[in-house]
Amino acid sequence: MPPLTIHQQLLTDCHLLCRLQHCHVLLHKNALVPWFILVPETGATDLLDVPAPQRELIMAECAAIAAFIKQHFHSTKINFAALGNLVPQLHLHVIGRNDKDSCWPRPIWGNLITDKPYTTSELDFVRKHLQLDFRMQD
Amino acid sequence: MPPLTIHQQLLTDCHLLCRLQHCHVLLHKNALVPWFILVPETGATDLLDVPAPQRELIMAECAAIAAFIKQHFHSTKINFAALGNLVPQLHLHVIGRNDKDSCWPRPIWGNLITDKPYTTSELDFVRKHLQLDFRMQD
Repeated sequence: MPPLTIHQQLLTDCHLLCRLQHCHVLLHKNALVPWFILVPETGATDLLDVPAPQRELIMAECAAIAAFIKQHFHSTKINFAALGNLVPQLHLHVIGRNDKDSCWPRPIWGNLITDKPYTTSELDFVRKHLQLDFRMQD
Repeated sequence: MPPLTIHQQLLTDCHLLCRLQHCHVLLHKNALVPWFILVPETGATDLLDVPAPQRELIMAECAAIAAFIKQHFHSTKINFAALGNLVPQLHLHVIGRNDKDSCWPRPIWGNLITDKPYTTSELDFVRKHLQLDFRMQD
């Protein structure tokens, strides 16, 4: 299968950060919450339709990103979701939350009423630590 | 570990349907969309913190419920989520969606403006087919 092309809407909404073994890692441009989006290399559109062995590899990368978020942001819990009603390409939301964030306890979709961009130094921080943390896991 | 006690809020919001090997299966009382909630037998509160072997068993039961929804409701896709901002006990939303449903394409949380109860015969249908389909998988 040729490498997957990431849906244009995701590329518009997100910063493209890196490629792990099974998923592309994106960061939503709204910095109000640490909102990572993983796009797995699969043609399936529903996570629960992905064959179990491949799904577990994908979930392991989501778990690694969740741990990364908890380590580097002030996140006490993770919201995890595969929705895809607007963008049909399978993409997995891995979102750091805490009880002081801007729309707690509501889900973020439709409830982030402002849009805060990342600064260049914040983005550099994320890219640098992703590289460090995931290189260490190799 | 003693059997898990299901959080009171989930019992208030849902019909308790059955117990699979790893998860309790609940059905949200709002029949506007087929909204199943699985409560896994774990003390973890974040899905991505569950150890991988146990997580895959839980995901396999979610996948079986997703297939059940697609078979018995007019659902063309599944929204899957682990949020837990209001109810801390780990619970997994497995929700059948289609482009004619009452809040498509928005996520259901906060967007189901009315509340439609299941009729007794609809609930009987779900219970009967769960029993049939999951007995066949034994």
